[in-house]
Amino acid sequence: MLTLYGYWRSSAAYRVRIALELKGLAYQTQPVHLTRAGGDQHAAPFQALNPQGLVPVLVDGEEVLSQSLAIIEYLEETHPAPPLLPGAPAARARVRALAQVVACDLHPLNNLRVLRYLDENLGASADAQTAWYHHWLQAGLAALERRLGTEPGTGKFCHGATPTVADLCLVPQLYNARRHALDLAPFPTLTRIETACQALPAFAAAAPERQPDAV
Amino acid sequence: MLTLYGYWRSSAAYRVRIALELKGLAYQTQPVHLTRAGGDQHAAPFQALNPQGLVPVLVDGEEVLSQSLAIIEYLEETHPAPPLLPGAPAARARVRALAQVVACDLHPLNNLRVLRYLDENLGASADAQTAWYHHWLQAGLAALERRLGTEPGTGKFCHGATPTVADLCLVPQLYNARRHALDLAPFPTLTRIETACQALPAFAAAAPERQPDAV
Repeated sequence: MLTLYGYWRSSAAYRVRIALELKGLAYQTQPVHLTRAGGDQHAAPFQALNPQGLVPVLVDGEEVLSQSLAIIEYLEETHPAPPLLPGAPAARARVRALAQVVACDLHPLNNLRVLRYLDENLGASADAQTAWYHHWLQAGLAALERRLGTEPGTGKFCHGATPTVADLCLVPQLYNARRHALDLAPFPTLTRIETACQALPAFAAAAPERQPDAV
Repeated sequence: MLTLYGYWRSSAAYRVRIALELKGLAYQTQPVHLTRAGGDQHAAPFQALNPQGLVPVLVDGEEVLSQSLAIIEYLEETHPAPPLLPGAPAARARVRALAQVVACDLHPLNNLRVLRYLDENLGASADAQTAWYHHWLQAGLAALERRLGTEPGTGKFCHGATPTVADLCLVPQLYNARRHALDLAPFPTLTRIETACQALPAFAAAAPERQPDAV
């Protein structure tokens, strides 16, 4: 049995939920409440699973897996159908690079622990924190829009006619963008792809509001 | 012919250089001067290759590849020997997760563009910038030390007896830590592995100071 330790609004956990749903894998949800006083992610039970104190963690029998993209590659290798990466190395590299624009260059800067540091250690005002959040969001989404809007590999989804790891990263990031009231008008390709994704039951089932810990 | 667009002190480019050297692949170096006034990464020639304006970019014939971890997976798939990932899915997930602690959670926060934002938009003092840099470095390295110091998968290198993608991320990050005068005494496992890596000619050849654009 697979158990996913996550949090309904964690966009990294959301990526893994979409992967599990697309592959049709049954899993248990174990909520880790990130914003409660103290934070469940800092408590001993979760630290024993992941000393980084970050979700998601996927437990598969004896295996304890962390880092959303590593977990998704693991699911891809252990449950290859339907594939979340194309077959050719250059196409796989394109999909992974698009995913990493979100997972390496965008999302880490807007993570909860970073916003807290800006607040508590740098005395950034609420406006300055919003400016920070929007700055990195716009930079990352603009880079994705330029690529996805011009490259021949783009199809109904980020790459071709079926969802890939790139879509699994894009959709949760756009969820965050809407939550933080970013104007998405400059990103027509991204929102067009998002609409295609949201029409799939797997994406709908993985949505934050559908999770048992949603409040 | 492979061409690597990089910068001698970019730790993401450094990761790819180590991969190329370990696999014994000949490549041309095309320096992108990140700190020159204006920044070569923002100029039209490089933007045409990567609209994100980030190094590294690897050009392999017709293919233009970005994002260091996506590039390394591409090299792994197109030139499998010697492998930079183990064979079993759970082991591969461990190695990728260790790499992503650096590439997703640590390095993006200490990147040049982020330090510039702290300086120019948040008015952070030099001391506050150093505190930021050390905070994320310590958090990431401490998580790696706890994992690598206790998990049975750790060997002479981060995973087993040969270097993997995890080592390719660790060594450049420790280079940055030394450059920024972080005390590495709390990380004995990491520095022990670093010493094993640095004894290999491939790591030595990839070192920043050995690059043609080093100043």
